[in-house]
Amino acid sequence: MRNIALRIEYDGTDFVGSQWQTNGRSVQGALEAAWQQLTGERRRMTLAGRTDAGVHARGQVANVRTDTHHSLATIVRGLNGILPEDIGILAAWEVPEEFHARYSAVRREYRYVIDNGRTPSPLLRRHAAYVPRRLDVAAMDAAVRQVIGTHDFAPLSDGPQEGSTVRVCYDARCTRVEVWGQPLVLIDIAANAFLRHMVRNLVGTLIQVGEGRIDAAGFAAVLTGADRRARVLAPAHGLYLMAVRYPGDNSGTADEPAAPVGVTETRMQL
Amino acid sequence: MRNIALRIEYDGTDFVGSQWQTNGRSVQGALEAAWQQLTGERRRMTLAGRTDAGVHARGQVANVRTDTHHSLATIVRGLNGILPEDIGILAAWEVPEEFHARYSAVRREYRYVIDNGRTPSPLLRRHAAYVPRRLDVAAMDAAVRQVIGTHDFAPLSDGPQEGSTVRVCYDARCTRVEVWGQPLVLIDIAANAFLRHMVRNLVGTLIQVGEGRIDAAGFAAVLTGADRRARVLAPAHGLYLMAVRYPGDNSGTADEPAAPVGVTETRMQL
Repeated sequence: MRNIALRIEYDGTDFVGSQWQTNGRSVQGALEAAWQQLTGERRRMTLAGRTDAGVHARGQVANVRTDTHHSLATIVRGLNGILPEDIGILAAWEVPEEFHARYSAVRREYRYVIDNGRTPSPLLRRHAAYVPRRLDVAAMDAAVRQVIGTHDFAPLSDGPQEGSTVRVCYDARCTRVEVWGQPLVLIDIAANAFLRHMVRNLVGTLIQVGEGRIDAAGFAAVLTGADRRARVLAPAHGLYLMAVRYPGDNSGTADEPAAPVGVTETRMQL
Repeated sequence: MRNIALRIEYDGTDFVGSQWQTNGRSVQGALEAAWQQLTGERRRMTLAGRTDAGVHARGQVANVRTDTHHSLATIVRGLNGILPEDIGILAAWEVPEEFHARYSAVRREYRYVIDNGRTPSPLLRRHAAYVPRRLDVAAMDAAVRQVIGTHDFAPLSDGPQEGSTVRVCYDARCTRVEVWGQPLVLIDIAANAFLRHMVRNLVGTLIQVGEGRIDAAGFAAVLTGADRRARVLAPAHGLYLMAVRYPGDNSGTADEPAAPVGVTETRMQL
């Protein structure tokens, strides 16, 4: 039986989230319906990252076990012809039978986009969270680097969590860019895995640092759980799942000969 | 009587265009309604550039003659508090009594954004026109530079046109950029003024060049009106009015002391 991985982009605005739910449009539901229409198969799509309602993705990964004989190019074109316009397949590639989009992943990369203009940009309203006060990006960058390494991230998570709450953060940074004259602040974070609301709680708290409401010590107190008062959940619509990495870089983003149809690069750059 | 200029951004997706119309939401209608709610005055807003339904703006300019005593900061904040979320005021500044957003303008800058990825980006679906074939940007850049200078642009315009169809094109270029790994092609064009559909017809024809359907001579034939068969109207949703310039750079984008509240830079860069 073939096992096929898909790299997926979506605009999260009109989805109830990545996972199938009884009410509303989910990313998983849209993918499974399109797959059935293309191949006639009712199959479960396994998604690498669970994203909340409103969260976007540029590099979500799913896999599906299948008997279809369609070529990878046909799968990409066919699914894109069926899927609604707010979700698309960027690449498809063959993976080993044991590949599991969620459990095989070794690294996830998220980006948070803040519109930090003097007035909010109407063109960015669904794709960046607006913060009017000019953010101190140097202070935010210094603070966010504290999370790099192996930590128990339970103080940044919400809801019940199965198993360990220890995660390994590989990279975390905060940068200021301008797009069409509008100042944006980007927060990039990469880890082996993330807890529920971990990025959004981290970002919301980091914004408190950037606004000068708390200092590095106050930020550390939130991280360790010593004082949660400054913890704030940032809005979903600024968040993007940018990439998911697998052993051997089997992530649909490398330009290998054996690789993906429709590959594009999604590393940390605007 | 005061005369106040406004720099305006909008997402054109849900507007019938910039000008007031009997049916549907116009940019002018939204501005006039917000102005009346803020000041109690029923006033005509004069817009610098006429944009079609679906066309966006990052640097539209309007002016309004008024008796209001509100400060510029209050006008920006007040209008932004009233306007729907797909339109916003970036800056407001005082202009001389004779200033007319449309007739005083000496330069308009438009940008067209093409999504040239192997698959269309769902996140860009309303803000870039998708062209699947990889475009020859060098050929497009060489072609578009032919329009720089003083020309009769009637062959690129549609519908009745009052007065002269001669326009002075100051700059025109085509570049390739990558945003989040997605290849985009940008077409930037600046002129003293534009005829109806001039940019969209220019871009649509230029795409024919980039796809290799016509060569530089074929493009020139469209420009001169010798052969219109390759003329194509590009979709509205890739087009942005980026900036409007006035004598003395009274355009709401310079960082002068006397200048605008909420100024940001909108020159030609992504």
